[in-house]
Amino acid sequence: MQALVYTGTEKLEYKKFKDPLLVDGESIVRVSASGICGSDMHAYHGKDERRVPPLILGHEVSGVIEEGSKKGKKVVLNPLITCGKCNYCINEREHLCEKRVLLGMNRPIERQGAFAELVIAPDQNIYELPATLDIKKAPIAEPTAVALHAVELGKDVLKKSLNQSRVLIIGGGAIGLLCALLLENYKKCKEIILVDLNEKRLASCKKELNSETLKPDNEIIKENSFDLVFDTVGLEITRQNAIKFVNSGGAIVHIGLTQPSGTFNFRKATLQEITFVGTYCYTNKDFQNTLNLLSKDVLGKLNWIEYRDLSKGFNAFKQIHDGTCSSPKIILIP
Amino acid sequence: MQALVYTGTEKLEYKKFKDPLLVDGESIVRVSASGICGSDMHAYHGKDERRVPPLILGHEVSGVIEEGSKKGKKVVLNPLITCGKCNYCINEREHLCEKRVLLGMNRPIERQGAFAELVIAPDQNIYELPATLDIKKAPIAEPTAVALHAVELGKDVLKKSLNQSRVLIIGGGAIGLLCALLLENYKKCKEIILVDLNEKRLASCKKELNSETLKPDNEIIKENSFDLVFDTVGLEITRQNAIKFVNSGGAIVHIGLTQPSGTFNFRKATLQEITFVGTYCYTNKDFQNTLNLLSKDVLGKLNWIEYRDLSKGFNAFKQIHDGTCSSPKIILIP
Repeated sequence: MQALVYTGTEKLEYKKFKDPLLVDGESIVRVSASGICGSDMHAYHGKDERRVPPLILGHEVSGVIEEGSKKGKKVVLNPLITCGKCNYCINEREHLCEKRVLLGMNRPIERQGAFAELVIAPDQNIYELPATLDIKKAPIAEPTAVALHAVELGKDVLKKSLNQSRVLIIGGGAIGLLCALLLENYKKCKEIILVDLNEKRLASCKKELNSETLKPDNEIIKENSFDLVFDTVGLEITRQNAIKFVNSGGAIVHIGLTQPSGTFNFRKATLQEITFVGTYCYTNKDFQNTLNLLSKDVLGKLNWIEYRDLSKGFNAFKQIHDGTCSSPKIILIP
Repeated sequence: MQALVYTGTEKLEYKKFKDPLLVDGESIVRVSASGICGSDMHAYHGKDERRVPPLILGHEVSGVIEEGSKKGKKVVLNPLITCGKCNYCINEREHLCEKRVLLGMNRPIERQGAFAELVIAPDQNIYELPATLDIKKAPIAEPTAVALHAVELGKDVLKKSLNQSRVLIIGGGAIGLLCALLLENYKKCKEIILVDLNEKRLASCKKELNSETLKPDNEIIKENSFDLVFDTVGLEITRQNAIKFVNSGGAIVHIGLTQPSGTFNFRKATLQEITFVGTYCYTNKDFQNTLNLLSKDVLGKLNWIEYRDLSKGFNAFKQIHDGTCSSPKIILIP
C-alpha cells in the first residue's frame, strides 16, 4: 500500500509500505479519511517518545472493512486499544487501562496509524458509521470524543450546574472549538469565552460559535471570574492563565500537553479550593455518545473541516507548522 | 487582659493587651483553651502576608461566653467569619466567601486571635460545646473540621468508593493524623499509609492508628499505587511525591501550603487523568458534623494532645520550631 510515513523529525514521506496482515479478532480497513491531530504534530516535531520514526501516524479514522467479519461495512475507528480485562476496563474507564495503546504509536507496542490506504484494528474498536454521518467528516468523531470526555469531566467536578457556569476555553484549535460547540449545543451553556493568540484561528472559531472569541489579553477577561476553564493548549503560560482566571471553588480541565512540566500557583489552588483535572482520550461510552451526537448534527454541519490528498500530507503538516493554515482540522483523503 | 502577642518574626510576648469591646451581634468569650496551628507557625516565621505583627494569633478556640446573649454558655468557636449573603455563603460554601476572615488575622481586616484571655466573635460563629466533649480538648474541633472537609472533598472526586480505596497521607502533623483517624474510624478505610520524615512524629501517629506509619522512602510505597493522596505538607517535594505515588485516575487532596509555587508533573496528571484539588478550611456543615463526631468519641480519646500555659506559649512555639516537641497538637491554656 501507499502510506505517509513519518521518517524523522519534520520529515514525512509518501511511499510504499508493507500491507497490514489480518490477525484473529481484528479487521483490515480501507481508509476513507484520516485527520491530523495536535499529537501527530507533536510527533512530527520529534517530541513524542511514544511515536518513534519510522512510523505511520494518524488515529482519527473512517473507512470501509476490507478484510474481516464485517467486510464492506462503513466504519469509524476508536483508536484507543485496551485490554478489556483490567479493573479500569471493567469499570468503564478503559482509557486508563495500563496496556492501552493508540493507533499510530509504536511505544511500548507498535500499532501503525491511518495515514495510509489500509489500517488494521481490533474488532471491538470498530464502530458502524451512522447513516447520517458523511464518511469524509467521520474522523472528527475522535477529537469530538476527546472534547466530550473533557466536558463531562468538567461537569462532574463542578459544584454548580454546567449550563449556569461561566466557561473559558483556552485555545481555538480543534479541541477548543469542539469543546465550545459541545458546551453551546449539547450542554446549553450561555456564557462562554474562547481565547487564542492567533487571529486567524479566532476568526475561524467566530464563524462557528455564539461564544465570544477573544485574545487572551482582552480586558473583558477578568481574574477570578470563570467557574470552569478548559486548557486545550497545556503550556506553562496557559496553565498560569487558567489558574488566574478561574473563580474560587472552580475547576480547570487540562487537555493539552504542550509543556509537560512547569510552575503553578498552588497557593491559589489551595486557598480558593480549585480543582485541576487532567483528561486523556475518552471512554468507550464517550465514543459511542459522540457518534450519536454527530449523527444528529448536534455540532452543526462541520463545514470548517478542510480536506487534502494524503499524497500531499507533508504540505499539510508543514502549513500547520508554519501557521499558514488556520483551519481547526485537516483531514487527509487517500 | 493578658495575651500572647506576635510582635515580629520569631517573636512572641506575653503581655497586657486591650480588652475586646462588645459589638452588636457578637459575643466576648473567656478563652478556656486555644490550639497552635501550622498556620500560626507560618506567621511566627514571618511568612504569612495575612498575619502582620503586632497581632494575637490563635483560631482553635473553646471558652465560656463572658459578654453576649448566651452569657455563661460553654462554647467552641468556628473561627472562619463570612458574610452570609454572597453566592458562596448561600450555597453552603461559606469557606469561599470573598469577605471571609479568620480569627487571628489582620489582613485584609483585623480580627484578633485567641492566644489571650478574651476574644470576640460573631454569634453565628459560636457553637455550643457538646456535653460529652472536654472543653480543654475542644479546640481540636477546628483542625478536625479542616481534615473532615478534605476527606469529604477526596470522597467526592474519587470515582470509586472511599472505603475500597488505597490512601496515602503525606505528613504526620495534626492534619495528617486527623485525616487518618477520620478515614479509619469514620470512613472505614482499610488501606492507609501515613508517611513523615520525622521519626518522633511517626511514633506519635503509630500509637493512635491502625494505618501503617512509614518514612516516605520506604520501599513498600510504590509508584502509581494509591487511589487517593492527601498532601498535608504542601512542599514542592511532597506534591511531587503525591503525583508520583497516585494511581491512574486517582486524586490528590492538597491541604498544606508550605511552598506556594513550584513545578509539577502535568504530563502524568494529564495522561493518567489525575484530579488535584485544593482544600481550605471547612463549611459550616463540616464544622457542625465535626462537633457531632467528637461528641461521640469517633476519633478516640485525643490523649495525644499536649497542654501548656499560655504565659509560656513562646516556649511551645520555639519547641515546635526546633523540632524538640513532636506532639501533633499543643493547646495553650490561659
